[in-house]
Amino acid sequence: MTQDDKTRIQVDIYNQTYTIVGNEREAHVRLVCGLVDQKMRELKNNNESLDTSRLAVLTAVNVMNDYLKLQEDYAKLQRMVEEKEDK
Amino acid sequence: MTQDDKTRIQVDIYNQTYTIVGNEREAHVRLVCGLVDQKMRELKNNNESLDTSRLAVLTAVNVMNDYLKLQEDYAKLQRMVEEKEDK
Repeated sequence: MTQDDKTRIQVDIYNQTYTIVGNEREAHVRLVCGLVDQKMRELKNNNESLDTSRLAVLTAVNVMNDYLKLQEDYAKLQRMVEEKEDK
Repeated sequence: MTQDDKTRIQVDIYNQTYTIVGNEREAHVRLVCGLVDQKMRELKNNNESLDTSRLAVLTAVNVMNDYLKLQEDYAKLQRMVEEKEDK
């Protein structure tokens, strides 16, 4: 999702309004942004001194960490499928 | 990765220093943070007017979007494995 594409959807994340522009369905965009908002609020609860900018960066770090772990799991499952096919 | 756990690793993301505290290996933490830094710089190139806070939120939105797509792919692959096992 970038800011220079087709559909324009306004969302609130951590009390700021963003216009998300892209090709995704509105429900999907709202789901994604809702999860980011939720993660930011969870992190804020654990680190009350964090300002919005640092909070958002650490949220991105957390989600990237989850993404890489899922990527590893996906690769493992894929190898398992390939090994089964070879038998 | 949270800010109140075991190993403490200092990283720079988008010209700010963060202390990442957790149980992850240092190389993994540096990889994750390097990818976030890279994503922020890519987004900044496409949206020069964004301040750091909005840039970081939109980076988190992008990574979350990638995460959900990968989660769908993972679920599809898993269903494929299960269907094969049923045969």
